[in-house]
Amino acid sequence: MRLTADASGLYPIAPTPFHPDGRLDEASLDTLMERYIAAGATGVTVLGIMGEAPKLEPDESLNIAARFTKGMAGLPVIVGVSAPGFAAMRWLARNSMDKGAAGVMIAPIPSLRTDDQILNYYRQAIEAIGTDIPFVIQDYPLTLSVQMTPKVIRQIVEEHPSCVMLKHEDWPGLEKISTLRGFQKEGSMRPISILTGNGGMFLDFEMERGADGAMTGYAFPEMLADVVKLQKAGKRDEAHDLFDAHLPLLRYEQQQGVGLAVRKYVLMKRGFIASDAQRKPGSALTAAARAEVDYLLARLAKHDSRALAKAA
Amino acid sequence: MRLTADASGLYPIAPTPFHPDGRLDEASLDTLMERYIAAGATGVTVLGIMGEAPKLEPDESLNIAARFTKGMAGLPVIVGVSAPGFAAMRWLARNSMDKGAAGVMIAPIPSLRTDDQILNYYRQAIEAIGTDIPFVIQDYPLTLSVQMTPKVIRQIVEEHPSCVMLKHEDWPGLEKISTLRGFQKEGSMRPISILTGNGGMFLDFEMERGADGAMTGYAFPEMLADVVKLQKAGKRDEAHDLFDAHLPLLRYEQQQGVGLAVRKYVLMKRGFIASDAQRKPGSALTAAARAEVDYLLARLAKHDSRALAKAA
Amino acid sequence: MRLTADASGLYPIAPTPFHPDGRLDEASLDTLMERYIAAGATGVTVLGIMGEAPKLEPDESLNIAARFTKGMAGLPVIVGVSAPGFAAMRWLARNSMDKGAAGVMIAPIPSLRTDDQILNYYRQAIEAIGTDIPFVIQDYPLTLSVQMTPKVIRQIVEEHPSCVMLKHEDWPGLEKISTLRGFQKEGSMRPISILTGNGGMFLDFEMERGADGAMTGYAFPEMLADVVKLQKAGKRDEAHDLFDAHLPLLRYEQQQGVGLAVRKYVLMKRGFIASDAQRKPGSALTAAARAEVDYLLARLAKHDSRALAKAA
Amino acid sequence: MRLTADASGLYPIAPTPFHPDGRLDEASLDTLMERYIAAGATGVTVLGIMGEAPKLEPDESLNIAARFTKGMAGLPVIVGVSAPGFAAMRWLARNSMDKGAAGVMIAPIPSLRTDDQILNYYRQAIEAIGTDIPFVIQDYPLTLSVQMTPKVIRQIVEEHPSCVMLKHEDWPGLEKISTLRGFQKEGSMRPISILTGNGGMFLDFEMERGADGAMTGYAFPEMLADVVKLQKAGKRDEAHDLFDAHLPLLRYEQQQGVGLAVRKYVLMKRGFIASDAQRKPGSALTAAARAEVDYLLARLAKHDSRALAKAA
Repeated sequence: MRLTADASGLYPIAPTPFHPDGRLDEASLDTLMERYIAAGATGVTVLGIMGEAPKLEPDESLNIAARFTKGMAGLPVIVGVSAPGFAAMRWLARNSMDKGAAGVMIAPIPSLRTDDQILNYYRQAIEAIGTDIPFVIQDYPLTLSVQMTPKVIRQIVEEHPSCVMLKHEDWPGLEKISTLRGFQKEGSMRPISILTGNGGMFLDFEMERGADGAMTGYAFPEMLADVVKLQKAGKRDEAHDLFDAHLPLLRYEQQQGVGLAVRKYVLMKRGFIASDAQRKPGSALTAAARAEVDYLLARLAKHDSRALAKAA
Repeated sequence: MRLTADASGLYPIAPTPFHPDGRLDEASLDTLMERYIAAGATGVTVLGIMGEAPKLEPDESLNIAARFTKGMAGLPVIVGVSAPGFAAMRWLARNSMDKGAAGVMIAPIPSLRTDDQILNYYRQAIEAIGTDIPFVIQDYPLTLSVQMTPKVIRQIVEEHPSCVMLKHEDWPGLEKISTLRGFQKEGSMRPISILTGNGGMFLDFEMERGADGAMTGYAFPEMLADVVKLQKAGKRDEAHDLFDAHLPLLRYEQQQGVGLAVRKYVLMKRGFIASDAQRKPGSALTAAARAEVDYLLARLAKHDSRALAKAA
Repeated sequence: MRLTADASGLYPIAPTPFHPDGRLDEASLDTLMERYIAAGATGVTVLGIMGEAPKLEPDESLNIAARFTKGMAGLPVIVGVSAPGFAAMRWLARNSMDKGAAGVMIAPIPSLRTDDQILNYYRQAIEAIGTDIPFVIQDYPLTLSVQMTPKVIRQIVEEHPSCVMLKHEDWPGLEKISTLRGFQKEGSMRPISILTGNGGMFLDFEMERGADGAMTGYAFPEMLADVVKLQKAGKRDEAHDLFDAHLPLLRYEQQQGVGLAVRKYVLMKRGFIASDAQRKPGSALTAAARAEVDYLLARLAKHDSRALAKAA
Repeated sequence: MRLTADASGLYPIAPTPFHPDGRLDEASLDTLMERYIAAGATGVTVLGIMGEAPKLEPDESLNIAARFTKGMAGLPVIVGVSAPGFAAMRWLARNSMDKGAAGVMIAPIPSLRTDDQILNYYRQAIEAIGTDIPFVIQDYPLTLSVQMTPKVIRQIVEEHPSCVMLKHEDWPGLEKISTLRGFQKEGSMRPISILTGNGGMFLDFEMERGADGAMTGYAFPEMLADVVKLQKAGKRDEAHDLFDAHLPLLRYEQQQGVGLAVRKYVLMKRGFIASDAQRKPGSALTAAARAEVDYLLARLAKHDSRALAKAA
């Protein structure tokens, strides 16, 4: 099953679960997949920045990708293959596809600045992995410090038929979605799937601007899946009501640096993973921060009963 | 009236109102002051980054500062005096104080990196403006790309008796407040006022961590003032209820680059200023963005009736 | 006399001479001009980054520009008008032209990243200053962190007939000159003047790649003028011989941060200016650094007798 | 043989030689070692940034380290072990030491800003690799954007007895050497070895400020070794004479981005390696650039006959 430009819904960005001693927690990987499926995921993305990918060994990375392609019940698995060198990128991309991945995601390296540098990088990357692998552009300026204009994205899409999706994570980014959909409408760019990130902070309006869904790791994937569904069903007010109920926690999770610690802590409390441990160097929550998250969960539970229910 | 370490409550960051042709709108300055006072402000900060200060001429800056010190009914006015050169900083600081300002705010220049560079910069700045002017440290890494640790802030406070306040705008920044208050508790730092920025995105918890109030420009200063009051009165749940009702709009306003356009648009709709014009280079809202803000205001009005009431 | 695309030779970047107490040293301005003319300058650029422009008051800036247009014996004076706001840029640009300036130089603001942002910035800037003022693009990524591709420069040139010159200060930048000259050759860009900066570190080869001259502030403008002349006369080896003799000192001057201190120290020793004082915040040389510069000057004097001769 | 604080002389930063198709060129590794020894190297550093380390697989990295420890005739081999995760850093560090390395070099990750963050990073790194492995601090702000003050370096040295060397690559950095040697003199820091980088651009004066030698990859290691020796022998003028003769080429090699292409091209011409190929993404020289390097080599040969002699 190959990723196509029709992809939509929720592709959670999967964290990588570790034991407190830093070993990979494979049992939690399985639990995580069950929960994602139950939450309404239509696919999954592994080995992203939030998946602590740079701290994994090459073999571990491939094993995680393979485990996901087996455990996701046939749903498409996107594998993050960003790497400093194209040899490593090719190795992980081709081997992941052999193991059943649906496509790969490629972020630009942080040193790129000009439009030409970005375009050239994607040319080299696609030459390296091969033109037969469906790929996702990861556009994440806040962390990568690479800014891609809509025109640059369009040119990547037009140059590479294997480009099927944009992971949209610009901030602010609402106008970018409108511009890209405008390109499609006027016929200057073929349709691609646009899934949005940024922890979901603008998912409510991103759907209204033309996004196809969410690709982010908020610790309540159920909410993300539901907002996408409600917006697609035209239930605007209901979508915003649900989104707004989650926004206080979602905003708390969306702090640079400690965000992953919040996310893993909530996923642990909700029974998605066994431990909130990160590989070093990592971040951790103070007692005060944990108490604040607990308070936010308690408040959320008044609107969304799933907030306190730990899965059996 | 001089700024002291006891300052608390709400010090709105005042935008600078312009006519559509770029001229300063002095009538709107007066309206703005009336509304800030009515909203419960306990002071005001002018000529900040969001006040488009770098786009003002020196004389305009001083005139704005002077108009505020006259119009704020005796409430303390803090004047942003950050400048590339210390001569200009001194000129604006001393003249503003002569016109009745309560103190000045100083941001580090973006090229500073190490602790020593930051400490040295504040030494030179205070030598330039004089040790008799109460000053505020502006700690705003996301925009200024200068990171000050709690230890550096403590050392600035300890070296300079005229330092009375921290404008806290780190992100994430909750632990920083706790650490600084811990320094005070253990006796290693004298007490200072801590007012928080970041558009108010974490004001709910910042108050619980020990902040004295807010210094930010969210277009509903009433909410900021009320959350500060409620938290000081120990009404935690009520504070969060009010805060959460505003969070969808507040989050929308807190977008890099277009944030000021959102803020001025809402202030215009609410009758605080006559026009949402910015001096060039500035940002502007698309029709789609304005419709989104209108929708958010309509939703907010269900919880906070002030959201739709345009002052007579 | 207006700047045209035929400009060539040496346009020194003039430092701004100050008295030790920070006041502008007007007598040194006059000396500086005499020496530049004697050194073979074909024009001059004032109020650049190395001219400590951000530390000057608006009136001081205009006075300096006016003094240069009077004192340079009819040679063209380029005025740096870069500013955070377009109102200030327009004010300085138009008033400088009224005082007899030949053109203005505009650097992009550091926050620009994408090609479109850069193009848009120049559109707004030229709209602000007027299309009748000849202007120079300042391309200086190391300090401004804005990267302009040759294609972006070409588009600025093509969109704005008043663009007559590129101050080329990319590093590395040799290929950029070749590409731009290639554009002219193939007819896709009209000819412009290219003067190079970077302290002169690559002037030897920049001339061979097609530059028209130098625009930089190395404390031996005589060498810069001579290398330009020798290369234009086809005396390649002689040009390199002279250049290489200066390279040890030139390299020492080209240190980020302390470079201006070295430059002003040498200019003071050579009698171009009375004091090497900078306005605060500035940099200063240690005794060890001054001794190193003295040693380099002594060594240079063996090859270029001008290195020890203090003008009477 | 373990690295100690007495290390001095020349430790070339070894490039990693590749075949044009991207495979590791092991024969060239052996040639490279022979030439380094012949050039007067007193040690070598492998897997640095210029060694394209991020583009190597973990096993390749270890194999290169092992090959060097065997081939360097008992001279100390320093292995760059910088990595996004401490698990990978530990793996390469401990295995390299098992294979006979003398010590490891650790660069801070680019996201570090404050003194505390840097200190904390080295604490975690040393905890990860173990306190029994001699290590080198890599201080390279231009590329890593992490600025370490002399005080921070002193604290790392004082906290970690296994810290034996600083690779000094700040720019400008002469005062930093003087300050660190001043710390030693006043007794506030124990002696460490300081070897300098930056392509050698300031080696002449760095030796005079107290450096123990060079650790950089300039394509004429003979010059670096000789300048170090001459300065140690008190032959200041001779050291500068030799250095100055090389400076035109050295400066050409020291261009960001294309520098490695220049370096590999010269090493290839000199017979140190068989091909100047880089793993992708890499940089390449245009015909014009190669001609410029050839010209610089021809000019250098007049002063230093080694410039044209290709080893048999």
